[in-house]
Amino acid sequence: MTEILKGNVVAASIKEDMTKRIAVLKEKGIVPTLGIIRLGNNAGDVSYEKSIIKACEKMDIQAKVYEKEISIDTSELVSLLEELNSDAEISGILLFRPLPKHIDEEVIRSSISPDKDVDCMHPLNLEKIFEGNMTGFAPCTPKAAMEILIHNNIQLEGSKVAVINRSMVVGKPLVMMLLEKNATVTICHSRTKDLAQITKDADIVVTALGKPKFFGEEFFSSESVVIDVGVGMTEDGKLSGDVDYDNVSEKVSMITPVPGGVGSVTTTILLNQVVQAAEK
Amino acid sequence: MTEILKGNVVAASIKEDMTKRIAVLKEKGIVPTLGIIRLGNNAGDVSYEKSIIKACEKMDIQAKVYEKEISIDTSELVSLLEELNSDAEISGILLFRPLPKHIDEEVIRSSISPDKDVDCMHPLNLEKIFEGNMTGFAPCTPKAAMEILIHNNIQLEGSKVAVINRSMVVGKPLVMMLLEKNATVTICHSRTKDLAQITKDADIVVTALGKPKFFGEEFFSSESVVIDVGVGMTEDGKLSGDVDYDNVSEKVSMITPVPGGVGSVTTTILLNQVVQAAEK
Repeated sequence: MTEILKGNVVAASIKEDMTKRIAVLKEKGIVPTLGIIRLGNNAGDVSYEKSIIKACEKMDIQAKVYEKEISIDTSELVSLLEELNSDAEISGILLFRPLPKHIDEEVIRSSISPDKDVDCMHPLNLEKIFEGNMTGFAPCTPKAAMEILIHNNIQLEGSKVAVINRSMVVGKPLVMMLLEKNATVTICHSRTKDLAQITKDADIVVTALGKPKFFGEEFFSSESVVIDVGVGMTEDGKLSGDVDYDNVSEKVSMITPVPGGVGSVTTTILLNQVVQAAEK
Repeated sequence: MTEILKGNVVAASIKEDMTKRIAVLKEKGIVPTLGIIRLGNNAGDVSYEKSIIKACEKMDIQAKVYEKEISIDTSELVSLLEELNSDAEISGILLFRPLPKHIDEEVIRSSISPDKDVDCMHPLNLEKIFEGNMTGFAPCTPKAAMEILIHNNIQLEGSKVAVINRSMVVGKPLVMMLLEKNATVTICHSRTKDLAQITKDADIVVTALGKPKFFGEEFFSSESVVIDVGVGMTEDGKLSGDVDYDNVSEKVSMITPVPGGVGSVTTTILLNQVVQAAEK
């Protein structure tokens, strides 16, 4: 019988802890506050923003949106970041990315205060992750995947994990988080040969390929724990993960659904890091 | 017939290129200069320093040694680094590590100018490696291992590589360098189970365990390319790599000897980065 690893259970557990910490902050007169910077009106950004604001409201976290023209230049964006860096009321800052191409992302990433960098884009925060120092902020998606594994008491030490993604927002930080838990990690990507053999041989498979239903049952064994980070739209317009859920879900040991899996934890991780920032 | 991957051949090729670049710098009146900071008289440090100075002399690179008491405190060491950072004659700085325990290594690592950080200890330089940006300075040992692979035209794209080490000076940077070449990488360590199965299944195995002769023939196939980064002393007082060379060397496809393998390239990589720093 396959165990479905639902994100909302994990998120609820994190929120329970957060609620207590937010109450402690309130007694000190501190309201955790997230400053959201959005450039332009990209539908995805607007929708993500709405869901974050809703989540903030439920947790008594304040959200302040700074909407700017998509034509803003690098120095103007740096000025805005500096303003929020020095604004004592702002605990954490989230800047929607990808940024428009005329913006110098390197300059921007280094301009956010590392202490308010709740989405972990500053090089110094990423370097901590590289070192295996997990005391600071982490990229939210890989951290969400980790929380699902940990919450469900899935054995990591000594386990073989295949990660299919090597980006700085998912794969690479996830590898460092898994190594810190003493897993043996294989990093796979578009040039990997015999992918099915590698994933089948792993105890845990984390997919973040962005190809809906790419992973059929031939990629897994009955013992596989499958964490599906991918989100995409199938040809018939349905939301799907990287895994062909209908055909795979009953043939593996554990699996996260899409939607309702990793994605349901990501925003909670973000808010948790806002609270963490406010606690400093 | 096993191919022995000798380090001196790779080092010679890098030096040939360096010689030309040093001549170009000379015409501009620039002498690449390495500032070496050594705390105390640890035998290993003194011996490494001697070999670096000898190598510098052969290449017309200047070496200046700053020998300080082992009792130096963090702020005094920061002051020394700042002095060298602003000394126009110093192209690159090498600080022998590990540092004594009373020194705050985090403060020190952030005090070296990233532009003179030829041993790649500054967090911003390490973060570039994490991102897969290989245009800056790299830790010398993993870079030496990469140069041996590249010089010998060993297929990296699509190949399976097992790296046995997860430190910030060898394993983790090496993984990023291999990923950048589109290899599929498995990171192994002391908690890894079925290590022999993983290494046997890999096309390339890089060992940096520090256990002389640990890897016997059962860890390899006749197709294995073996890069031995380990250096240690056997019970009978002989220098040995992690691999049981006498028993393995004729049973694999290619192997680096110890001594005469990766270690013979490391200093050349350091000097190459001094030249690179002088070119800026």
